[in-house]
Amino acid sequence: MADVLYFEDLTPGRQFRSGSRLLDAEQIKAFARDYDPQPFHTDEIAAAATFFRGLAASGWHTTAIMMRLIVDGEFRPAGGVIGAGVDELRWPRPVRPGDTLSVVSEVVESRVSKSRPEQGIVRVRHTTVNQNGEAVLEIIGNHVVPRRPA
Amino acid sequence: MADVLYFEDLTPGRQFRSGSRLLDAEQIKAFARDYDPQPFHTDEIAAAATFFRGLAASGWHTTAIMMRLIVDGEFRPAGGVIGAGVDELRWPRPVRPGDTLSVVSEVVESRVSKSRPEQGIVRVRHTTVNQNGEAVLEIIGNHVVPRRPA
Repeated sequence: MADVLYFEDLTPGRQFRSGSRLLDAEQIKAFARDYDPQPFHTDEIAAAATFFRGLAASGWHTTAIMMRLIVDGEFRPAGGVIGAGVDELRWPRPVRPGDTLSVVSEVVESRVSKSRPEQGIVRVRHTTVNQNGEAVLEIIGNHVVPRRPA
Repeated sequence: MADVLYFEDLTPGRQFRSGSRLLDAEQIKAFARDYDPQPFHTDEIAAAATFFRGLAASGWHTTAIMMRLIVDGEFRPAGGVIGAGVDELRWPRPVRPGDTLSVVSEVVESRVSKSRPEQGIVRVRHTTVNQNGEAVLEIIGNHVVPRRPA
């Protein structure tokens, strides 16, 4: 269990890791039924004839799993993992049944908030990789993080 | 039910609408238990003392609901709603229990793919609003859309 992190701890270049999670076809289809019921996410046979050429996880399923891995991992800002927004979200490669995902988070830059000087904005590149180390999701998150109390 | 849309149909300025969906506290907590188990998403009492000052949906829950509303709505490209990536994702306002969400999608720009001239990339601003018309989620999605067959 990592310590709680304040703005001052989140210096550019610092990296944080998550645990890992195995995703199976049933989980992919269950999420898709609720949130993204398109054939490439719900049915192996129908998926074969689509852009994805086989069953693939919804991109929003992958972001949700990324979030769970981050929340359970080393990147643990005081006040929680709170995003003011995300830049440059990319899914460079599909997530397939049987993939095991994990996240590496690296601080890109940080600045004190102009409007609220008791907190900062920390830009973090969160890269979700599969069991082969291939990126399946890359985001740059802008996190709201409190400064260390005096 | 809208017709299936090809690249040529998705001209800048064209708008598409979704139906709406009511979100309650149980749904917010159920998603959070699976994907984002932080106190501001799982427990009304604990949430009161946090940044959000009350229970709020996980931002990734909001994106998932946005996706479902889009998939069921008027924006229906041939081949499915497929995102090559997202730029400028913002959550300008929390989603609260009792909020009713809907999505307006507007084409921002479109271009034929250089590497695959049989398809195009269409940039679409998807704005998710609550029952008061206030934006709770804004994204610019880069969609892969086939050109109309000759």
